[in-house]
Amino acid sequence: MRATIMYAAGDVRVESVPDATLVEPTDAIVRVTRACICGSDLWPYRSMEPSEAAQSMGHEAIGIVENVGDGVRKIKRGDFVIMPFAYSDGRCKFCHEGLHTACVHGGFLGFAGLNGAQAEALRVPEADGTLYTVAGGGDEALMASLLSLSDVMGTGHHAARMSRVASGKNVAVVGDGAVGLCGVIAAKRLGAEQIILIGRHPDRVALGRDFGATDVVTERGDEAVQRVLALSGGHGVHSVLECVGTEQAVVDAVAITRPGGAIGRVGVPHYTGIPASPTFFKNVIVAGGPAPVRAYIEELLPDVLEGRIQPGRVFDRVIGLEDAPDGYRAMDAREALKVMIAP
Amino acid sequence: MRATIMYAAGDVRVESVPDATLVEPTDAIVRVTRACICGSDLWPYRSMEPSEAAQSMGHEAIGIVENVGDGVRKIKRGDFVIMPFAYSDGRCKFCHEGLHTACVHGGFLGFAGLNGAQAEALRVPEADGTLYTVAGGGDEALMASLLSLSDVMGTGHHAARMSRVASGKNVAVVGDGAVGLCGVIAAKRLGAEQIILIGRHPDRVALGRDFGATDVVTERGDEAVQRVLALSGGHGVHSVLECVGTEQAVVDAVAITRPGGAIGRVGVPHYTGIPASPTFFKNVIVAGGPAPVRAYIEELLPDVLEGRIQPGRVFDRVIGLEDAPDGYRAMDAREALKVMIAP
Repeated sequence: MRATIMYAAGDVRVESVPDATLVEPTDAIVRVTRACICGSDLWPYRSMEPSEAAQSMGHEAIGIVENVGDGVRKIKRGDFVIMPFAYSDGRCKFCHEGLHTACVHGGFLGFAGLNGAQAEALRVPEADGTLYTVAGGGDEALMASLLSLSDVMGTGHHAARMSRVASGKNVAVVGDGAVGLCGVIAAKRLGAEQIILIGRHPDRVALGRDFGATDVVTERGDEAVQRVLALSGGHGVHSVLECVGTEQAVVDAVAITRPGGAIGRVGVPHYTGIPASPTFFKNVIVAGGPAPVRAYIEELLPDVLEGRIQPGRVFDRVIGLEDAPDGYRAMDAREALKVMIAP
Repeated sequence: MRATIMYAAGDVRVESVPDATLVEPTDAIVRVTRACICGSDLWPYRSMEPSEAAQSMGHEAIGIVENVGDGVRKIKRGDFVIMPFAYSDGRCKFCHEGLHTACVHGGFLGFAGLNGAQAEALRVPEADGTLYTVAGGGDEALMASLLSLSDVMGTGHHAARMSRVASGKNVAVVGDGAVGLCGVIAAKRLGAEQIILIGRHPDRVALGRDFGATDVVTERGDEAVQRVLALSGGHGVHSVLECVGTEQAVVDAVAITRPGGAIGRVGVPHYTGIPASPTFFKNVIVAGGPAPVRAYIEELLPDVLEGRIQPGRVFDRVIGLEDAPDGYRAMDAREALKVMIAP
């Protein structure tokens, strides 16, 4: 089968690899109908040291179950499934608490020797706990939004939940990438009164306004901070969704949070420390991490199926699997917001 | 009147200063019946650069209202009051939310030109919002516990609240100082099932056991972390009360928090960054800051008055005001856990 392999920064290839096969009795093989390139894939695309071992890429997919191991009870061949970016057994105490990304038998797809999802098919461990079957399979027009439930929409929702967005609150979203824009959807869905989107790409902030952003701040750094403070009555906002992961992003996030407010971090941190003193003296709550998107599908799916939210609009380019290298290039160059792959 | 003044690290003097007088119409003058030395006072005691301006010390007191300004409505002369370490107007949005330490007209006693409480008397701004009258004045035997409501008991309670202590949870308290020990009281009071106290001073951990600690860890650093993990089933505890404020303390706090757990920081941070990656990948919540003790008096006072909690036991030495310099020395040398001053 064909799969997307990264060898080094800037060096992504689509290659023939052995077919995905069952290894553990709890595995399923999923034939990928849609996958995509994640903002987090751009970190290695920009910095990966050359490696012979290489890295099988991709952790977001929807598809059809092609085979299941003897130990799989709920998932059936032919099921149309959403595959969250993390696998989880669904049985441990963390899964029961809804924190599937801390599953004691869990991990991340496309890492630690597992195939990635930017491929024709892949092996999914802990199939019963990981995969979410969508009865009927969903309309073709819904595929992009269903795919978003495998990561970006659930991740934006996690940022909103962790930053305690609630009815009547004011909110800022740091970052106009796919996750930030899904964060806008999530904040609006949870009843935020004011949603300030910090971003500077005209197409993206326009989509953010469509999704519910009430204000857009195109400045950077301290100027952005001052604008957000001015827009929020001087003290900052209740909830900040940090959807970038850089040092500047977290510093800005802390600066625009009001005393007693909360930050939901979902950008993988490429910084070592969260500012200790300003968070302390303002009693700011810092939360977040890898989103337990598996836990959120149940809540978000009805809104997707009934068209109340349209997170699939973050995909602005669709390519075939062979074009994955160009998809990386386009996202890295910011020509594309988020690239969907239809193998 | 006599007051305690710090001129430099190790140089504390009790001196004659002008009597405290009303300045703003919202002020009250409080005659101090009990004050104390705070663990946070030891930071300047160990590091203050010599200064001619000097620093009037102390921010915890109970006492009798001696005079009030024309604008004071609720507080009356003769009232017996608890004076929280931060003053607050009681009217702003942050006070209404219970975050008095973010009051828009607030600040900290003993700073920014205000008198300290290790004195015969002091001026208290925003008297109506700041002071809490205890009807009847309380029994002599309760004075130490009432005094603890001005800071350490409320601060330990804040650490417990911010780390989301609740019935049946397991908890670790980092630090066996007065705040950490009050954190043990607070955790027990909120229903924690297991309370692991990390500390190494025999008298203090013994008091911690009296207060409700179920386990004591006397190791330091990584050994302490391994012990707490072993005591809590391998994954760490739900709630960590960080009551020290050093880099090591916060690193340990992060290491012993289970995925999805929370840290309540009340030790003034003497470090620059909260570890960004381990908190992220474990979805750990980091909260806390200067405790809004004014908000907590209402909840804690009945338990003090009826003897259900005895936070006053953290005071293990009582001195007169003239002996304040020796009180600092004794706390710095760890001869005393917490020193009460009876002017």
